[in-house]
Amino acid sequence: MAGSAFGTIFRITTWGESHGKGIGLVVEGCPAGMPLCEEDINRYLARRRPGGSPYHTERREEDRVEILSGVFEGKTTGTPISLFVKNTDQRPGDYDALKEIYRPGHADFCYDAKYGFRDHRGGGRASGRETLARVAGGAVAARVLEEIGIRLFAYTRSIGEISVDPGSFSPEERDLNPLFMPDKEAATRALSLIDEYRTRGDSLGGVVECLIRGVPAGLGDPVFDKLSALLGRGILSIGGVRGFEMGDGFGAALSAGSVQNDPFENRGGIIRKKTNHAGGIQGGISDGSDIIFRAAFKPVSSIALEQETVDREGKPARIHIEGRHDPVIAPRAVVVVETMAACVILDRLLVNMSSRLDRVKDFYRRWKN
Amino acid sequence: MAGSAFGTIFRITTWGESHGKGIGLVVEGCPAGMPLCEEDINRYLARRRPGGSPYHTERREEDRVEILSGVFEGKTTGTPISLFVKNTDQRPGDYDALKEIYRPGHADFCYDAKYGFRDHRGGGRASGRETLARVAGGAVAARVLEEIGIRLFAYTRSIGEISVDPGSFSPEERDLNPLFMPDKEAATRALSLIDEYRTRGDSLGGVVECLIRGVPAGLGDPVFDKLSALLGRGILSIGGVRGFEMGDGFGAALSAGSVQNDPFENRGGIIRKKTNHAGGIQGGISDGSDIIFRAAFKPVSSIALEQETVDREGKPARIHIEGRHDPVIAPRAVVVVETMAACVILDRLLVNMSSRLDRVKDFYRRWKN
Amino acid sequence: MAGSAFGTIFRITTWGESHGKGIGLVVEGCPAGMPLCEEDINRYLARRRPGGSPYHTERREEDRVEILSGVFEGKTTGTPISLFVKNTDQRPGDYDALKEIYRPGHADFCYDAKYGFRDHRGGGRASGRETLARVAGGAVAARVLEEIGIRLFAYTRSIGEISVDPGSFSPEERDLNPLFMPDKEAATRALSLIDEYRTRGDSLGGVVECLIRGVPAGLGDPVFDKLSALLGRGILSIGGVRGFEMGDGFGAALSAGSVQNDPFENRGGIIRKKTNHAGGIQGGISDGSDIIFRAAFKPVSSIALEQETVDREGKPARIHIEGRHDPVIAPRAVVVVETMAACVILDRLLVNMSSRLDRVKDFYRRWKN
Amino acid sequence: MAGSAFGTIFRITTWGESHGKGIGLVVEGCPAGMPLCEEDINRYLARRRPGGSPYHTERREEDRVEILSGVFEGKTTGTPISLFVKNTDQRPGDYDALKEIYRPGHADFCYDAKYGFRDHRGGGRASGRETLARVAGGAVAARVLEEIGIRLFAYTRSIGEISVDPGSFSPEERDLNPLFMPDKEAATRALSLIDEYRTRGDSLGGVVECLIRGVPAGLGDPVFDKLSALLGRGILSIGGVRGFEMGDGFGAALSAGSVQNDPFENRGGIIRKKTNHAGGIQGGISDGSDIIFRAAFKPVSSIALEQETVDREGKPARIHIEGRHDPVIAPRAVVVVETMAACVILDRLLVNMSSRLDRVKDFYRRWKN
Repeated sequence: MAGSAFGTIFRITTWGESHGKGIGLVVEGCPAGMPLCEEDINRYLARRRPGGSPYHTERREEDRVEILSGVFEGKTTGTPISLFVKNTDQRPGDYDALKEIYRPGHADFCYDAKYGFRDHRGGGRASGRETLARVAGGAVAARVLEEIGIRLFAYTRSIGEISVDPGSFSPEERDLNPLFMPDKEAATRALSLIDEYRTRGDSLGGVVECLIRGVPAGLGDPVFDKLSALLGRGILSIGGVRGFEMGDGFGAALSAGSVQNDPFENRGGIIRKKTNHAGGIQGGISDGSDIIFRAAFKPVSSIALEQETVDREGKPARIHIEGRHDPVIAPRAVVVVETMAACVILDRLLVNMSSRLDRVKDFYRRWKN
Repeated sequence: MAGSAFGTIFRITTWGESHGKGIGLVVEGCPAGMPLCEEDINRYLARRRPGGSPYHTERREEDRVEILSGVFEGKTTGTPISLFVKNTDQRPGDYDALKEIYRPGHADFCYDAKYGFRDHRGGGRASGRETLARVAGGAVAARVLEEIGIRLFAYTRSIGEISVDPGSFSPEERDLNPLFMPDKEAATRALSLIDEYRTRGDSLGGVVECLIRGVPAGLGDPVFDKLSALLGRGILSIGGVRGFEMGDGFGAALSAGSVQNDPFENRGGIIRKKTNHAGGIQGGISDGSDIIFRAAFKPVSSIALEQETVDREGKPARIHIEGRHDPVIAPRAVVVVETMAACVILDRLLVNMSSRLDRVKDFYRRWKN
Repeated sequence: MAGSAFGTIFRITTWGESHGKGIGLVVEGCPAGMPLCEEDINRYLARRRPGGSPYHTERREEDRVEILSGVFEGKTTGTPISLFVKNTDQRPGDYDALKEIYRPGHADFCYDAKYGFRDHRGGGRASGRETLARVAGGAVAARVLEEIGIRLFAYTRSIGEISVDPGSFSPEERDLNPLFMPDKEAATRALSLIDEYRTRGDSLGGVVECLIRGVPAGLGDPVFDKLSALLGRGILSIGGVRGFEMGDGFGAALSAGSVQNDPFENRGGIIRKKTNHAGGIQGGISDGSDIIFRAAFKPVSSIALEQETVDREGKPARIHIEGRHDPVIAPRAVVVVETMAACVILDRLLVNMSSRLDRVKDFYRRWKN
Repeated sequence: MAGSAFGTIFRITTWGESHGKGIGLVVEGCPAGMPLCEEDINRYLARRRPGGSPYHTERREEDRVEILSGVFEGKTTGTPISLFVKNTDQRPGDYDALKEIYRPGHADFCYDAKYGFRDHRGGGRASGRETLARVAGGAVAARVLEEIGIRLFAYTRSIGEISVDPGSFSPEERDLNPLFMPDKEAATRALSLIDEYRTRGDSLGGVVECLIRGVPAGLGDPVFDKLSALLGRGILSIGGVRGFEMGDGFGAALSAGSVQNDPFENRGGIIRKKTNHAGGIQGGISDGSDIIFRAAFKPVSSIALEQETVDREGKPARIHIEGRHDPVIAPRAVVVVETMAACVILDRLLVNMSSRLDRVKDFYRRWKN
């Protein structure tokens, strides 16, 4: 496995470099007969785009997807869906200065150590532009989940020390500010903080939170394929993520069992929990509550401040990184987190169909061929 | 995938329930010709055992492994190694009272939701006893890694609010106290805290940290198979883990790029980093520094305090959990974390052999058949 | 992948050597709630046993399976089923003479080339005894298929030049003669032929055919996971198989399109084919007709006749293979072929549940958690 | 798994329909640092093209590949290689007549049974045009194998009853006639036979044989991943293949052990076999001899003769298939067989690097990071 495939039944295989011909992916395992058009995916890609605010990288590509296969007369055929996003705004010359130098916080050195050389143009395969493919694949997954009644909602929970105030949490607000923060006041303060870091040539980190509503109890598997473990792998594979937690997360390690144990109750015939410290998953299997998790993003590595490093030969060097860079990545990563989670949930939903003999029998009794 | 297999080349497939005949696993992909005996594995199993301190569950099985296949005349043959640990201390009767009741914080309800029924004896497959198989498999992995010069060292970093003081960190101390805390004074205070929780029938959480030394730069893959993502999946699949972080982790989200970017330097011809905020992995690929990560464990769910819940029919019920339970799981989980990490590192080490054409060619030039 | 796992959702991982402690496997992905007992599996193992006729190896182990996990109160739990068959009749001393010698037709040399050394006792992992694990796993698969209404029926089609006469084909006869040939007269002639070969210290080959009835149209996948390709892989992985064909097989290469194209017809509202030259699979997907395939088994390699060879050092040697050996393997392989096919069909049946969105939606509408 | 991915380490994932925008694939796991250009692949695609003889379908696309990612400055980077072949000669209108009708011998009915509907244009995903992606992927594999000293050579062995005469076998001749038959006289007779079938509106089958030279002893794995089983799966997944055999194949089932057992000998210090009835693989592992296998192709299903069938509603229909169709597929399939085999061999070559501890240790001793 060379690392570019994700999922068991619903599986995406991505490809492409920052300054190559484009970014793309193959989506396998999408059930047949689902209405799908390019606009369904472009809506998600647009959320990843900087959007004209001064808080994001200035690269202005119109990232629009092209469906190359797997959709016929507006519906998925069940065979692989090939998606392609052209790179239109390539300025590889910008990066020639960095060809021989190992940027701190970047994967340049690691790629050279692994492969012997690398495509140095804008990070090549290690570029954040790689996430376009995840978002496109996850948009397809989210489209299927919508049909089943499952909705995902991710947002910026904090930027540096500034966090959304649970009391002011407003889902509608998320899409009204460039930071995707569902709290207007927190967003305003975070924008000032970002300006401050930008001015001094530095960058800062943030946390993205994701809620998933409508997941039936019973998804995920014991032992290694716990739903939490698979969500964790997906989220931790996003560039810049340094931490992942479910429910109360690291806070749970400071808490007591009498607090963390969520009591069960009967809600009109359905068994659910009164509280949700666990984040919707117990023993690796969904419990019918909302699934809640968080991802910690490190500060953006490309900063304007001069930094020490070495070149390929190991000679000391100093480096100024110029060009278009976000001072904080969390806001643009919101849609990446949401769509990666969609891929995991859909995959488990499809895998889970064979968990019980009575349901398998019932399924094939209805299958009429 | 039913969730009980882990790894691509070095792969373990585990089985067994808490109160069934035993716990076991099949280890595939262990290179041939490695000396291996049962004692190599038992040493690790012993670290998982409570050990007679009052801080752990009182179940007293002599968990000893039996090698059923894959080793001939003291060396691995390259074919599957089957390992078996017998359950000797089964008291299923203890659990009959809990048969119809959903314990808060446990997976009882989720298993019923998924499978329609469950083996309720002591948690069945969801029991912590399942980790025996991981430890046995990881012991084999660690044995191989030792041959390559890679060492893993995990320990309890904190219990409740009490944390190891970096200034007092002492590796030798880890194995001298029942909490596996490498700081004598912190361990003493933590033992008192545990006593306090135990007395009032409650439980508490903790954090386990793991260091990996000797990993060459270049392991791990871009995009989805980032070393951090695979470690994360492995660790998050351990029962009770609610969070995972690399290097500065969630702290990085509160920090600045100028702090987090680790500058490179030349150490006698080898390129390494001066600091290690990243935790030894950049862009998903090892950078030659120590790999450092942490796992947050929630408080143990089985507590003596009376709790509210419902039974299978949804009728309200109250529950006292009696019997042998740890008030904190982190110390026993230390060896589980260490061995899961060993599985991930070894698997990537073996996968990585084909990353460069020059090395593949060189390898087969030496292969003489 | 070290080669001992098979399947995507329904997955078996086998282990064990001919003269080690036993043979076993882990079955993952068996749906929960299915009645399963050891006898369900032993019935299949018995079909693999020589059975007292002089035509088979004389090793007389009572191969009986033990279920170690995954079954609770007589039903599968959905978690891994661990199965174990003890080796009771070990006479490793018998094989010491062969330790340094490469037996023609055997894998001795190849194992040494790959692994540097090998467990030489009775072939170790390369022994036909390995198939016990496949049969046990396939017995579980066949048990599930029975619940869905799918039946498999394999038999010896030919031994040397003596073939079942289609006009005399009698399913009941299969289990009445030691060769599992569904044609009494052919069986009688084949028994004489075998005696002849046995007397002169030689061995002979045979062909096993398998029919699968009740498979709905629509199983299997386009391109690489064609049902025929997956059946082929499973069958070609059985020791001694040199060829695999579907329907008219190699005969189709000598035939005309006007003959091979099976015309469709309407059978009371269901679309089926009038003829079945294709063997029940078109474009890799089942077409609702019986699935029919054949496996060619080479003559048994262990023969009494003196043979030339070399030892590990490359020194010329002559070899007499003594001990208990079948002169023909096809009859004992009948149940192996049947159960391997069961594994493939069940796996695809479970994978196929997610092929259409309307069915996925319907499934989750009925799922009540 | 939706069926469009193949391989463990060297892995191809293909996509595309006959009359969609194009055919493509993602190649994962190709070692970094290998020179690769589009011409390396186009050479193989050209062998699949009809080539102007009247014996092949008249569709005249200039099938030329475009490398979209994974190659930088003329060398592979180790990250996914995305390959694309545009469909230029689309005449979907040609197929409207067939939209509602199930063509005998085709997968139309099976796709509808599985997915509920299908892309009916020219077979959609089930079209032989799908093999373009395999050939492109296999061309990359073959390019790597060439660097290791492994060469593949496939050819048409027979068409209908006309077979290559072993006495007249001439490798050079293969590329001098439109049938890729390495025997001039046989090719001439086969061309006449094809004309005869074409004239009467019928089609005929054929056999393709493949030789692989230079494979070291020791590739392939015991039990399920036998090299023969993986080759078989790859070859049986090619459209129209009805049978697969290694070495003497089905002939071995008619032969004696004393004939089939290949004796070992010492060839200047290297152990090899004197004969090669086994086809270069024993116990699933390569033995250092040439690997030899054959694939049986059924007659082409699209024939001009009128045929009976039914439509989607089950109503009887008669059908004439017009348009551009080969009367025999084997010659065009030669390169498909060769490249599929290249994928299997390369994958096993890379997987095999970790088979022995001494070699793993040696490898990492040389790794300098």
